[in-house]
Amino acid sequence: MGPGPSDVHPRVLTAMARPTIGHLDPAFIAMMEEIKALLQYAFQTSNALTIPISAPGSAGMEACFVNLIEPGEKVVVCMNGVFGERMKENIERARGVPVMVEDTWGTPVDPNKLEDALRAHRDARIAAFVQAETSTGVQSDARKLAEIAHQHDCLTIVDTVTSLGGSPLKVDEWGLDAVYSGSQKCLSCTPGLSPVTFNDRAVEKIKQRKTKVQSWFLDLNLVMGYWGSGKRVYHHTAPINLLYGLHEALAMLQEEGLENSWARHQHQHLALRSGIEAMGLSFLVHESARLPQLNAVVVPEGVDEAVLRSRLLNEYNLEIGAGLGSLAGKIVRIGLMGYGANMKNVMYCLEALEAVLADMRAPIQTGVAMNAAQNAAVLN
Amino acid sequence: MGPGPSDVHPRVLTAMARPTIGHLDPAFIAMMEEIKALLQYAFQTSNALTIPISAPGSAGMEACFVNLIEPGEKVVVCMNGVFGERMKENIERARGVPVMVEDTWGTPVDPNKLEDALRAHRDARIAAFVQAETSTGVQSDARKLAEIAHQHDCLTIVDTVTSLGGSPLKVDEWGLDAVYSGSQKCLSCTPGLSPVTFNDRAVEKIKQRKTKVQSWFLDLNLVMGYWGSGKRVYHHTAPINLLYGLHEALAMLQEEGLENSWARHQHQHLALRSGIEAMGLSFLVHESARLPQLNAVVVPEGVDEAVLRSRLLNEYNLEIGAGLGSLAGKIVRIGLMGYGANMKNVMYCLEALEAVLADMRAPIQTGVAMNAAQNAAVLN
Repeated sequence: MGPGPSDVHPRVLTAMARPTIGHLDPAFIAMMEEIKALLQYAFQTSNALTIPISAPGSAGMEACFVNLIEPGEKVVVCMNGVFGERMKENIERARGVPVMVEDTWGTPVDPNKLEDALRAHRDARIAAFVQAETSTGVQSDARKLAEIAHQHDCLTIVDTVTSLGGSPLKVDEWGLDAVYSGSQKCLSCTPGLSPVTFNDRAVEKIKQRKTKVQSWFLDLNLVMGYWGSGKRVYHHTAPINLLYGLHEALAMLQEEGLENSWARHQHQHLALRSGIEAMGLSFLVHESARLPQLNAVVVPEGVDEAVLRSRLLNEYNLEIGAGLGSLAGKIVRIGLMGYGANMKNVMYCLEALEAVLADMRAPIQTGVAMNAAQNAAVLN
Repeated sequence: MGPGPSDVHPRVLTAMARPTIGHLDPAFIAMMEEIKALLQYAFQTSNALTIPISAPGSAGMEACFVNLIEPGEKVVVCMNGVFGERMKENIERARGVPVMVEDTWGTPVDPNKLEDALRAHRDARIAAFVQAETSTGVQSDARKLAEIAHQHDCLTIVDTVTSLGGSPLKVDEWGLDAVYSGSQKCLSCTPGLSPVTFNDRAVEKIKQRKTKVQSWFLDLNLVMGYWGSGKRVYHHTAPINLLYGLHEALAMLQEEGLENSWARHQHQHLALRSGIEAMGLSFLVHESARLPQLNAVVVPEGVDEAVLRSRLLNEYNLEIGAGLGSLAGKIVRIGLMGYGANMKNVMYCLEALEAVLADMRAPIQTGVAMNAAQNAAVLN
């Protein structure tokens, strides 16, 4: 129940243990086509360029930036957590010019600040932001931010690593241009793949580049030779068994139904929240911007969070996440992602948390969390 | 029996289906330490920086070039197949200056040509070459090439994607400086990971860089914060289940013994060779430079190799590889890699090949391949 990798469903684990076949085998290519269609469903897009990058989410982020930026180009980045900072690093290394728009960690991106920045930097052609900040559990209004970006003739690069499959994300309806995610959060697949989707405007920018993409491995012009729909050209050897796993995870998402999956995450979040609040603990993020799948809980006064996490792991075999950056020591992050977003996990987590915190003499209310969570689960 | 991914051992497949745990879980970190030690054994090195990159072999190649090259630096590349060409692409994209030394596809790199090039380009500080060319099945003398490079004060970047675990590779004894490989060839693991090893001289060059590594994802200064031996800092989410698989594959290599694995590959190659030659077919590569694990067989006159491969796949469930580049249509590539390098595969492949070629009216000798292979297997 950390911030990812989340628990992987046994069906996905079993799929990954299937015999490895060749990356140009017709049976494998047929599966690749299914993966593309299933990813289009998960992203709610009809973008033809919707594929998994053969590496973790960080490489998906890098794929977006190195394909879309040419040296000297200005990019406005909305930063309200760790991953906005990482975007800045990516832009600089691609020899772009980042313009940073900062918001406090734990608050969503302020659309007005983005608007001001785009007015002040009229030569910017890209705006980048994180829809779901894994470091804080905050969600920003991707639709609104994309709308503003488009008014200023900017493409958007959007981080949806933690949102995909777990909370509303509508790539086409919201007009998001280049979007990357990860396999190891709400899809309940193992880490190592980064689903991405690019709309026609983004693809056009890549095709019109004057310079080569600086990464050979991530050059989408080349990657599409393998993942495109025509004759397949070997680019790199695809991670066959990981893709078996992703295929199974996406098939399960389709079986459940995307909206049902979003509702399940929200439902379990509300149950967890009731228990957390009944104990007297609080959330870092205001209710209006809380991600259901990433619960940043403020560590009570006097509690050493490293000890708390270590005791949960050793005594309860339960992993939760630490705070990052300026939030290190101040929050813990409880994931309710994919397969892991279920009532059994919520109850177990509350129970373990209460027991350890009580033993650590934290100022909490005991004996009420479970009831509150159960009531919330029934009500919602 | 293609050029990789090779057949994955059931133990490795089973390992990949273990429950996913966190990338900072103490149990996982202990496994990472074991992977490093096992990789040191496989590479025959004591290099501290010996880790798997979280992406396929092509990303391992890119990791070597983007970490070791700074803009404007000259790199001599020995090219005798597809992967030398890919090195050139990598260097140019890292804004280095490639100096190409070419040899005919199917022949090893000529050490004299490397020497001449290094004499003509005294400002080059890196020489790169492929020890085991997967596109042709040829092996070059890595020890000799490294010796020449060092005489000219150059570091070496060496592609060992197809050799690691399958034929002699001695990183320390031969003085190779930066070496990359893949998980999906003679290690019999699934694709998606690229083992790399860097010696102190290579690490020193990386540490002394004046410019940042252009790839954030592949920046070894950052990757080492996670894979190093001190306090682990989150960089990217490691591909947990793939690493379970690699750990198991490397443990199996250690159980068998590295030299025994090399001998097994050679033994099965000689059996295959006897059968191939008894049929009247020939190898692309001269005997003195043939890789046992990658057998490039010349397609007989009048045979459409695409039809041959397709019939083997559809009628015999047997995959072999096509020729690449200028060898497309002219050779097929038969892999004897890792778990797949066994007598059953050799006999089955010869049988299927003979049956289909005979049916295609190829000018071959029938009824003698199996006996020749069996005799060779006994003799060797």
